[in-house]
Amino acid sequence: MSAPAASEAPGVPADRLRDFAVAILEAAGLPAADARVVADSLVDADLRGIHSHGVSRLGIYVQRLDAGGNRAQGPVTVVADAPSLAVLDGGDLLSQVPSARAVALAVEKARATGCAAVSVRGAAHFGAAGYWARLIAEQGLLGMASTNTSPLMAPWGGVTTAIGTNPLAMAFPSSGEAPVVMDVATSETTWGAVVNASAAGAAIPDTWALGRDGAVTTSASEAVAARRLLPFGRHKGYAIAVGVELLTGALAGARCLSQVADMYGEPEAPMGAGLFFLALDPGRLSPAAGQAFADAVRDAQRELNGLPPAAGVERVLWPGQPEAERAARRRANGIPLPAPIVEDVRRVAAGLGVAGDRGPWAGAEGGAA
Amino acid sequence: MSAPAASEAPGVPADRLRDFAVAILEAAGLPAADARVVADSLVDADLRGIHSHGVSRLGIYVQRLDAGGNRAQGPVTVVADAPSLAVLDGGDLLSQVPSARAVALAVEKARATGCAAVSVRGAAHFGAAGYWARLIAEQGLLGMASTNTSPLMAPWGGVTTAIGTNPLAMAFPSSGEAPVVMDVATSETTWGAVVNASAAGAAIPDTWALGRDGAVTTSASEAVAARRLLPFGRHKGYAIAVGVELLTGALAGARCLSQVADMYGEPEAPMGAGLFFLALDPGRLSPAAGQAFADAVRDAQRELNGLPPAAGVERVLWPGQPEAERAARRRANGIPLPAPIVEDVRRVAAGLGVAGDRGPWAGAEGGAA
Repeated sequence: MSAPAASEAPGVPADRLRDFAVAILEAAGLPAADARVVADSLVDADLRGIHSHGVSRLGIYVQRLDAGGNRAQGPVTVVADAPSLAVLDGGDLLSQVPSARAVALAVEKARATGCAAVSVRGAAHFGAAGYWARLIAEQGLLGMASTNTSPLMAPWGGVTTAIGTNPLAMAFPSSGEAPVVMDVATSETTWGAVVNASAAGAAIPDTWALGRDGAVTTSASEAVAARRLLPFGRHKGYAIAVGVELLTGALAGARCLSQVADMYGEPEAPMGAGLFFLALDPGRLSPAAGQAFADAVRDAQRELNGLPPAAGVERVLWPGQPEAERAARRRANGIPLPAPIVEDVRRVAAGLGVAGDRGPWAGAEGGAA
Repeated sequence: MSAPAASEAPGVPADRLRDFAVAILEAAGLPAADARVVADSLVDADLRGIHSHGVSRLGIYVQRLDAGGNRAQGPVTVVADAPSLAVLDGGDLLSQVPSARAVALAVEKARATGCAAVSVRGAAHFGAAGYWARLIAEQGLLGMASTNTSPLMAPWGGVTTAIGTNPLAMAFPSSGEAPVVMDVATSETTWGAVVNASAAGAAIPDTWALGRDGAVTTSASEAVAARRLLPFGRHKGYAIAVGVELLTGALAGARCLSQVADMYGEPEAPMGAGLFFLALDPGRLSPAAGQAFADAVRDAQRELNGLPPAAGVERVLWPGQPEAERAARRRANGIPLPAPIVEDVRRVAAGLGVAGDRGPWAGAEGGAA
């Protein structure tokens, strides 16, 4: 193993973490191939430092499989199909499974026609939106991915929990080192950041959340009690959240807004969320057009990286670059998971009788960062 | 004429303003049909209260036609074509002309295949992005529209003018009164707001712009001198701006980032911007699917309108609702254009020898609001 980056402790090798996640998901009833699809998406998030969408989710996934909100096995069905558009039913499986199917179908249709969209109803949490958009870009196509989520945000001008933190992701294939990946949730901050501030007894900025009285709060514990995050960019983040709600939930014939069940609070209830994927293949116009697009993306990456940075900033980065560079380091050095996540994954594994009590952390890498 | 809304002075009837804009554009050399397309987009913006994208643009359009940065006549050509994807060359015409062609082509292809995208290179200013997305939604399809613009914004982590305020728009057909229209520019505020603050000698918030030294400024005059707006939502608005740059400029084979010419500062230079349009037709799956989508959009509109509003807020609104309601009032009562815009349009008309010296304001409506 090569030396770790100065800023990170050594960690667990990605392939061992993935195998452990597969074992947990198989023990929870998933077919081996499906377990691999789900584990890939989670470990990819941990590689990129997005631990909120990594193996930390195994606990709630297993809990929901036990409680009945998600199913371990079953078909993904085609509800409706056209040359460049389709709707799938995700059958309340862990939603990485229908997402992988939808991405493959969108890419196939886009290669045939130029551009195609696939929606999924009967969905739950599908991991990080940017992961699915990037899977499309890694095949040379422009990708989009999006989902509606359980309500956790107040609408602009409102006071109650009304809409999800609905992420929108786009990814662009590049002749350079890695695709550009734009992935923005529509809340000003993450739920995890509010929970962490509450645990630390810290105050929060006045742009993050409303309290139970519907007024802006700087109390993290009040924000946790109220569950009313604020949209990023005020009315603009709200507008994007509503757009994503309709692009995902309404288009798929899935649930929208208050009808989407709470992933954590209602583990026995199918979420009923909607997913949206789009693939666009410039190479369908001509091989030269596909190449010109990837070259133009690379040129934009170079131009942005070459801009003068602000004081204290090393480089101007393109979207997805910090995560791509972190993933490259962690592929070499392992993934330094936060200790509470390691403990939680061990707990989940132990509950299913998987791999003794230390899992992939049994070896010389030792513990978490 | 019915009584005006309490909050607005009476104004000029939309059809008279449109005819006057057509006369100006015809005098500047546009074919009659093209003049109508451009005038429709401008007057629609004024109806909705988006005066920055309304007839106030006639001055710069005519100036650019005179200087050679835009052409009054010429073909829109098909560069490449596939069943659900095409690229057009806008030939440096006023870009409403290729935009109308691209929207029609995207809708035609989406009705045939389910989903289709059309890009345009050789483009300039196309008006409000939401206008084009809404034209698609008004035909029963989900619409997207976007463009890159002349650089006017600093990148997140940078200090120089590097990227446009690249708007992203989506529109959703509804069984209710009007489509949902999400239309967000990626800067925290508009250039017009900074210019107005500078003219008024007012300070600006510390989230709006950088000064010439690359540091955040609260001096509006410094912000005007530097031309470095900040993205909305910090890194998130920057990520969306880069995504739109690649979705529009790179995909169309148009210019990107620093290569896009300045519409105002270089009236003799073709801008070379890129446009992106997408149409998605759920009705291609089945008539029932199209109806279910429009019903789901209407249901979401009702749910959002029914949410409890914050103190001092009349109603929680869906994106595009204020503009749709304003347009309905102004169709009945006329458009109360700000006086400086009226004066400027008169000046442009007089320079072209159009319609005497008062234009559509010659009648009883009198002047501007």
